[in-house]
Amino acid sequence: MADESGFSKGLAGVVADATSVSQVQGEVGRLIYRGISIEELAEKSTYEECVYFSLYGKLPNQNELNKFNAEMKANRVLPKTVEAVIAAAPRSAHPMSILQAAVAAMGFDENPVNLKNEEHNIHNAIKIISQLATAVARISRERRGLAAVAPNPELSHAENFLYMLNGSKPNKEEAHIFDVALILHLDHDFNASTFAARVVASTEAKLSLSISAAIGALSGPLHGGANEKVLEMADAIGAPENAKAWVANALATKAKVMGFGHRVYRTMDPRAKVLRGMLEKLVATKKEKDTYETLRIVHDSMIEELSKTSKDYIWPNVDFWSGALYRLMDIESIDFTPIFAVSRVAGWSSHIIEMWRDNRIYRPAAKYVGPADVKYVDMKNRK
Amino acid sequence: MADESGFSKGLAGVVADATSVSQVQGEVGRLIYRGISIEELAEKSTYEECVYFSLYGKLPNQNELNKFNAEMKANRVLPKTVEAVIAAAPRSAHPMSILQAAVAAMGFDENPVNLKNEEHNIHNAIKIISQLATAVARISRERRGLAAVAPNPELSHAENFLYMLNGSKPNKEEAHIFDVALILHLDHDFNASTFAARVVASTEAKLSLSISAAIGALSGPLHGGANEKVLEMADAIGAPENAKAWVANALATKAKVMGFGHRVYRTMDPRAKVLRGMLEKLVATKKEKDTYETLRIVHDSMIEELSKTSKDYIWPNVDFWSGALYRLMDIESIDFTPIFAVSRVAGWSSHIIEMWRDNRIYRPAAKYVGPADVKYVDMKNRK
Ligand SMILES: CC(C)(COP(=O)(O)OP(=O)(O)OC[C@H]1O[C@@H](n2cnc3c(N)ncnc32)[C@H](O)[C@@H]1OP(=O)(O)O)[C@@H](O)C(=O)NCCC(=O)NCCS
Ligand SMILES: CC(C)(COP(=O)(O)OP(=O)(O)OC[C@H]1O[C@@H](n2cnc3c(N)ncnc32)[C@H](O)[C@@H]1OP(=O)(O)O)[C@@H](O)C(=O)NCCC(=O)NCCS
Repeated sequence: MADESGFSKGLAGVVADATSVSQVQGEVGRLIYRGISIEELAEKSTYEECVYFSLYGKLPNQNELNKFNAEMKANRVLPKTVEAVIAAAPRSAHPMSILQAAVAAMGFDENPVNLKNEEHNIHNAIKIISQLATAVARISRERRGLAAVAPNPELSHAENFLYMLNGSKPNKEEAHIFDVALILHLDHDFNASTFAARVVASTEAKLSLSISAAIGALSGPLHGGANEKVLEMADAIGAPENAKAWVANALATKAKVMGFGHRVYRTMDPRAKVLRGMLEKLVATKKEKDTYETLRIVHDSMIEELSKTSKDYIWPNVDFWSGALYRLMDIESIDFTPIFAVSRVAGWSSHIIEMWRDNRIYRPAAKYVGPADVKYVDMKNRK
Repeated sequence: MADESGFSKGLAGVVADATSVSQVQGEVGRLIYRGISIEELAEKSTYEECVYFSLYGKLPNQNELNKFNAEMKANRVLPKTVEAVIAAAPRSAHPMSILQAAVAAMGFDENPVNLKNEEHNIHNAIKIISQLATAVARISRERRGLAAVAPNPELSHAENFLYMLNGSKPNKEEAHIFDVALILHLDHDFNASTFAARVVASTEAKLSLSISAAIGALSGPLHGGANEKVLEMADAIGAPENAKAWVANALATKAKVMGFGHRVYRTMDPRAKVLRGMLEKLVATKKEKDTYETLRIVHDSMIEELSKTSKDYIWPNVDFWSGALYRLMDIESIDFTPIFAVSRVAGWSSHIIEMWRDNRIYRPAAKYVGPADVKYVDMKNRK
């Protein structure tokens, strides 16, 4: 881990805490949530079940799930103050900036943290998880100049989100695909945004403020922001026939290809596999196949070219296919990263609640490499 | 560092990166900014000079300082959108929540990050440093039901902040004390909020979003939030004559005494010494001496009692005296932590700009302690 500088840059390989929420098994390309593989959860479960499982550490029985769903639904409407913060943003603002402000505003009426009151903290998390989806839909509609759509309590979390986003109910197939995408993005051990949430919450900052901070981290192009960038890349390539040459040029100029690479995976990201499977089915039903074709060629050429080099550990990650899937559902690229947040907020919350059981402030050490003793020079003698 | 669990909880003692911005010398109780001790800077310098020094790594000559001051002043007025976000908050909201939302809103018109364009990033930082002071004053006045006060370009950063907060120009002495307090809070290597700022910015998130995240971390009572808590404690103690017994009881019940303890210092925090010196001078000119007297007895009793135990490494930190000083300047306790941010924003910015020269995403490892293989049980068979 530590290199010649005596520390591990980016904390690569440095254990920052223990967790039972999820585990990325980087060598074998496996991801488990509390001991169950995401493939199995994607196949058999729903987002709501997985959120419950993540927060409480147990799969809900029917009674528990009913109560949980009712609580999620009861919390869908945004406070007026949060609506006002969203309304304050100009249409040109990136939705992740607006979302970060909106979630901080969810803290306006949050009580100071009491680490011992875990039940209260979980209910607070459920409120934020539920409201965040409403906020993302509302931000998107305001940007597009459309009136907000009130949540529909008859719909599941995924269905209702698409309904609030589009103003019409999704068909069964798209709602299912979207639900699975939410499951796949729910958690990923100590990724940068979860780690940011932990650092902030470790000071005993409020849940909403910790989650607002995580949104900042997710917005970055090296992290969740990559899903928007992948589609920008596909658009810049323009057509499938340009893709192979584009990859050759990217590798030759050492450009970073968005949606590739990972700190922990040394093989294909298991989420990318599930997403691609769904995408292939969906694309078969659509006329527009160019974006998928372009990305498919980028994907295959990258793997082929990298396999010939020492960088054969670079593989596609979750952000490579998600955008193409959302685009086929007529969602604008700029909303992809906020949609990542709609799911990951459950992971952020689960980590904070787990951490607060045995909390210690994150305060690492620094290696000082500046001068030890600098003479204070008076203004008149400064160069 | 690592204990029997195989990692260091809270990343205590783990080096997270190299820096030249500042160094906490914990054993000797010394703090330097780029090689100059804070005592010397507090005596000879101004906050604006120190901000310049922190951002650019060089003490400004008169020309450079003039240009810098002009830029700071030119950026004092808040964008209408940020004002609208502040106006959206109810008076009951904690100002740190509002500030976090307001700084995220400063990102509404920020361009995506270009790590290579350091000049641009520094100018962006100057804008945020300047605007943050205006935001804190405005948030405070809205809470108190007072009209906002427009910045006065004839005043220094400290003077202007007090002017915008109070609606009248501060006297020379109080302006000087406040300026020194800003210098003392400017930076502190990898404290939790700076570390949060680094984690978020390491994803190449925008500067404003990274700083908004840092505000969340600063708000926590284990970090900057402690300065507000110290005065709540003094108020709860009620009178100097109760202080000794209060400390005995706190230690006996293992309560955390706010304003004491530090991850790195193993002796008196040098900032606490300078603050106390100024406080003693100021208190001598005032009628109300009870808060100071109460805190002085808490301070002395804590040190005396702790020195008899194995916890003799626990000493007062920066947050112990700052609130008492601000209260003598008629500032409400709830505004103390936002005032910490008015200063520390310069440190957060300096760290991010330094880090972006050689950036790598913060993505630590996790120790998974949950079950490896959990059977997925169908709904009807769940307990
Ligand atoms: C995800 C990511 C930030 C991981 O960062 P990391 O663990 O610090 O990995 P590094 O940046 O050290 O990468 C190691 C090497 O692979 C290269 N590399 C990593 N990702 C690459 C990519 N997407 N395209 C091309 N080269 C890449 C790096 O340039 C580096 O090469 P070098 O050793 O010659 O300098 C990084 O792979 C990346 O930026 N990917 C693109 C953004 C993205 O898709 N993010 C979403 C992640 S879910
Ligand atoms: C600053 C602080 C978060 C540092 O945390 P840390 O490095 O993780 O230190 P720890 O919490 O491990 O403290 C070590 C021991 O000292 C005790 N301790 C630390 N600060 C204490 C305080 N302020 N009052 C009483 N006991 C304290 C801890 O309870 C712990 O005891 P234990 O070993 O019996 O469990 C911690 O000292 C604290 O919470 N202080 C009060 C809040 C504060 O003033 N923050 C502002 C910092 S600038």
